[in-house]
Order: sequence, then structure tokens, then C-alpha cells
Amino acid sequence: MARIVTGVKPTGDLHLGHLVGLLEPAVSLAQSADEVFYFIADYHALTSQHDPHQLEQHVRSIAVGFLAAGVDPNRIVLFRQSAVPEHTELAWILGTLTPMGLLERAHAYKDARAHRREVNAGVFTYPVLMAADILIYRGEVVPVGRDQLQHLEMARDIAKKFNHTYGATFPLPQARVEEGERAAVIGIDGRKMSKSYRNTIPLLADRATIEAAVRRIVTRSIPQGQPLPTEGDTILHLMHVVDPERAAALERAYQSGAVGYAQAKQQLVDAIEDRLRPFRLRAQQLLESPETVDTILQEGGKRARRIATETMAEVRRKVGLAVPARMRK
Amino acid sequence: MARIVTGVKPTGDLHLGHLVGLLEPAVSLAQSADEVFYFIADYHALTSQHDPHQLEQHVRSIAVGFLAAGVDPNRIVLFRQSAVPEHTELAWILGTLTPMGLLERAHAYKDARAHRREVNAGVFTYPVLMAADILIYRGEVVPVGRDQLQHLEMARDIAKKFNHTYGATFPLPQARVEEGERAAVIGIDGRKMSKSYRNTIPLLADRATIEAAVRRIVTRSIPQGQPLPTEGDTILHLMHVVDPERAAALERAYQSGAVGYAQAKQQLVDAIEDRLRPFRLRAQQLLESPETVDTILQEGGKRARRIATETMAEVRRKVGLAVPARMRK
Repeated sequence: MARIVTGVKPTGDLHLGHLVGLLEPAVSLAQSADEVFYFIADYHALTSQHDPHQLEQHVRSIAVGFLAAGVDPNRIVLFRQSAVPEHTELAWILGTLTPMGLLERAHAYKDARAHRREVNAGVFTYPVLMAADILIYRGEVVPVGRDQLQHLEMARDIAKKFNHTYGATFPLPQARVEEGERAAVIGIDGRKMSKSYRNTIPLLADRATIEAAVRRIVTRSIPQGQPLPTEGDTILHLMHVVDPERAAALERAYQSGAVGYAQAKQQLVDAIEDRLRPFRLRAQQLLESPETVDTILQEGGKRARRIATETMAEVRRKVGLAVPARMRK
Repeated sequence: MARIVTGVKPTGDLHLGHLVGLLEPAVSLAQSADEVFYFIADYHALTSQHDPHQLEQHVRSIAVGFLAAGVDPNRIVLFRQSAVPEHTELAWILGTLTPMGLLERAHAYKDARAHRREVNAGVFTYPVLMAADILIYRGEVVPVGRDQLQHLEMARDIAKKFNHTYGATFPLPQARVEEGERAAVIGIDGRKMSKSYRNTIPLLADRATIEAAVRRIVTRSIPQGQPLPTEGDTILHLMHVVDPERAAALERAYQSGAVGYAQAKQQLVDAIEDRLRPFRLRAQQLLESPETVDTILQEGGKRARRIATETMAEVRRKVGLAVPARMRK
């Protein structure tokens, strides 16, 4: 299924939403692809993160997350975006072909402009770097959330403009919209699970932390033996996310009145524990062996850079820039 | 006198205005500096030039111009901007620190927006790449025309922002405004000498072409033996540009009525020929030996890149990006 390219902004608060919406889909998607490039978008992160230690830590955290979720670094090229500085070079070149009007119409930029006091140029030119991220590997399929569809459309427009100006070079990347659980994972307060709402089930927490989180789920006061309402119930929702079979059983118990909220919460904690334990064990091993993670990222970076350098040699020749000796074919 | 950095957009129509306003000042400025970086700004050129062969030719033309004017490639690091792709990487990083408002206030961008149907993102982010061009060599002095003063002010603002966010890294570059002949060279039609007005004295033309150009200077009909008006006279102006001594003599002849326009034009052609001949001979030698020019540019590129790579290793460490093994100190 062609060449897949996708990037993820480094974040330090890996939670259940990431696991089922990002990390696990990445693993299964890779199984049906010819070639897969997953990069940790640290150049993009700079548009909002200016603490170098935190950024380093977030990069490591997301790399551990991918690997613990089952990404096989022999099959998948896993790397830091900044290991391939050619992304930024191609972004400059593509920027000279990108009309201002295209970028000004980006929803994400308009939102940022409407809500933040100061927006930096990196936020504005983000879609150009994203286009470079994909095109430099001649990516054909790009898994995106609905909120990124417009940016992918821009990447296609920019690729078309390049091909039209300098001759056929880039395939037009296709979006593959993730309709899965990602957007749908609800936090313990009933809103979308997100670090900013402080409503997450963290991936690397111990049982006590998970218990404390689950205890915070607000429930109604319903007499013992009475059925519990299933509609919009957060416990049932989370149970479904981590273990659909147990969720079906719990739902029947809700309807028959055979279970109270305290027991239901206990069952949910057990189910989350069972679901996260293998991931957590692998993640802890990786966290204790940072050099293993570094080596995997460096090897991935080298593989990615080899391809990026080839693309850039062709791009440079086509636009009329210097082609350094080591880039010449 | 510190470290000088300056770039020039490649152009293919080298004329007298370039020689006296750009190439020769570059040579004399370099004599008083510790270190000099002159780059041919081909990344910038892409914002307006999309013909790769023309761009290549323009790059070669301006390189030949610098060398024929007396740039010593042992003293001066002469190179193509695109031989150092790190410029674009630093530009991305600086862009994440550059407020949109700063770029939106740029006169050059506002002018482009007012006059052109479609402005590309490269035109808008031009000042960020220009800041990177200077800061990557920790440039201290930047020769600029008055029209570039605002862009240099932006480079200072961006350097301050980086230093403030990540710790002291870049010296704040100082503008050195060229008050010289550059803006003042008038073409054969009395307007500023410029390719777009088709009013130039080309640097590499033969005598016949120069004669044809000088013949096109419009003069009045004044009876033989009468004084000629000196005020605003294009022949006198050009004579002053190429040979101030002969210009003084010619001015006296104007005032005494000892010369007519036909003779004055003949004297001007001779003076231009004398002035341009040594430049033209050196330029022709270089044009016949393109590999010499290529080698000089490649050597310059390597020297520049060594310094740029060092700067980027520090910048990457400070902002929290991957520091590739070969970049580590």
C-alpha cells in the first residue's frame, strides 16, 4: 500500500488517547504498507516549545511510546525530524512557490491569530514545512486527523505548483482520515481526553494513580440493585476503549442492576491495568535504556536522510541551485 | 574591522552601476576587514526566478563580476548561498521566534503586496532568511543600501529574541550604509541605471555596443562653438563615474564651447573603454574557464559551511534539537 509518511508533535503526557488513537493505529497501518516513515516533529514543536530540556524529554517520551506500542524499527523508519535538516531546505524552496493567500486561508492559522496575542512566522508557514515533510520522501499516503485535512490539501497544491513549474517530481499525497477512536476517547470528566483538561489516564502511571483518576469520575447517587443508565456513561466508554468484551458484560450488569458504580470503577481499573501493563513494561525497559532509543532514532534518521538527500539532489538540479559534489549522481 | 557578511542576488545583466556601486566597493571594504563572507543569494533569487538555467547563468555572471573586480578568494569567502543549506535551517528556527507583525510591517513586502497580483511566502519570510544569512556567520558588519536598512533592523530584533530566549549566542549585526555611487549611477536615458529601464552600459559588451548605447543619449541642438549646459548632463555624469579627471576637463570644454556633443560622446566611449577594459579582460578569461569559477565557489562554500555547521551545532543544542554525531563537539 505505497509509501506512508506521518509526523507527530512531541508531547510529554502520553495518555490512553494517544495509545488507542495514535500509537496502536500507527502499528497496524504499517503492517499493510510498503514503506513507512514516522517522524517526531521537533522542528514544528519549536513554534510553541522554547524549553530545550522539555523538548528533548518529549521527543524521548513519544519515541518510547511508539516503540512500546509495537513499532518495529526494522520495518518502520522512526526518526526525529531534525535529524534530516533537508526538510527545512525543501520548505524554503516550496515557500517560494506558495501564494500568501493559500497560507492566510488556513483555519489553524486563523484560529491562532484570533486567540493568541502574538503568532510567530513558524505557525504561519507550518503548512509549507508539513508539505516538505511529506514530499521529501515522495509520500503517497498520509494518515491525518480531520483537523489536518486542509493542511494536506495545501501540500497537494504546493506539490502541483512545483511539478507544474519544474516538471513532474512529486506524487500528490493522499489523505487517509483516521475515523478511529482518536478523537473519540473521553477523559474522566466527560470531555475529550487532553492534557490541557487534566482529565487523562496516563500511560506510564502506576495502579494507585489510575485508581485515583477513575475515582474522580462523577457518578449519580442510585440505590443498590437499581439499573444504571448506560447512555453517555464515562465508565462504560472507557471500558469499551480498553476492553470491548468486558464493556459488553459491564453494560449488561448496568441494565440488570447487578452492579454499582463503586464496583464498576474497580472493574475499570482492573481492565485498564490489564490493557496497559504490557505497554508499560516495554516502555519502562526502554526508559531505563535511553541509549537504545537514541540508537534507534539515529539509525532511522540516517535511513530517512539518505532518501531526503536524493530527493534534494533532484530538486536542486531542477530549480538551479548548487549541487554539492557528494550529492551528485 | 570585524566580520563582514553580505549577499547579493544573482543578476545576469552586469552593468556599470554594479561595478562602481557593488563590485568595487566590495573589494575595498574587504581590505579593512578581518573576515569577509560574500555570498550569491540563490535561495533568495528563487522568490522571483523560476528558470534554472537562467539562475545558474546569473550566479556564474555575478561570481565572475566579483572576481574580475578584484575579489581575492583567498582573503574573501565567496560562495553560493545554496552551498550552505544550514541557512534555511536556521531560518526555520528563527521564524519560530519572529512575530508575524514584524514581517507584516516590512516596506518591501507591503510594496510587493500593493503592486503584484500574487506574492509568495518566500517574499514574506525573506527577512528571516536574511537574518539567518548574517547570524549563521555571527556577522558583525553588514554593508546595505538604504532600502535594506529595515531588513537589517529586523535581523537585529530576531537576534535579540533568540539571545533572550536561549542565552547569548549572536552578536547584533551593525548596518554599514553605502552612501556611494551605487544609487547614483544614471543610465543613458537620465533615469537610474537599471536593466528594467534598458538604459545600461553593460560591463561585458564590446566597443560597438558601448558606442551604440552612448549614441542613444539624448542631446539638444546647440550651434558649434557655443557653451553646452553642464547641469544634469548625462554625458558628464557618466564621464565622472568612469574617470573624474577627464570629467573635469570635459566640463571645462563644455563651458568654453570647445566641444560639441558628438565629440563629447566619443570621449565618453573612450573613457568607458579604458575604464572597463581591464575588468573585461579578466572577466573574459574567467568566462572561458568556468571550472576555475566553480572551484572557487566550491572552496568558498566549504569554508563557509564549516563555520555554519559549528554555529548550528550550538543552536541545535540550545533549542533542543537532535545534534548529529558529526556535528558534536
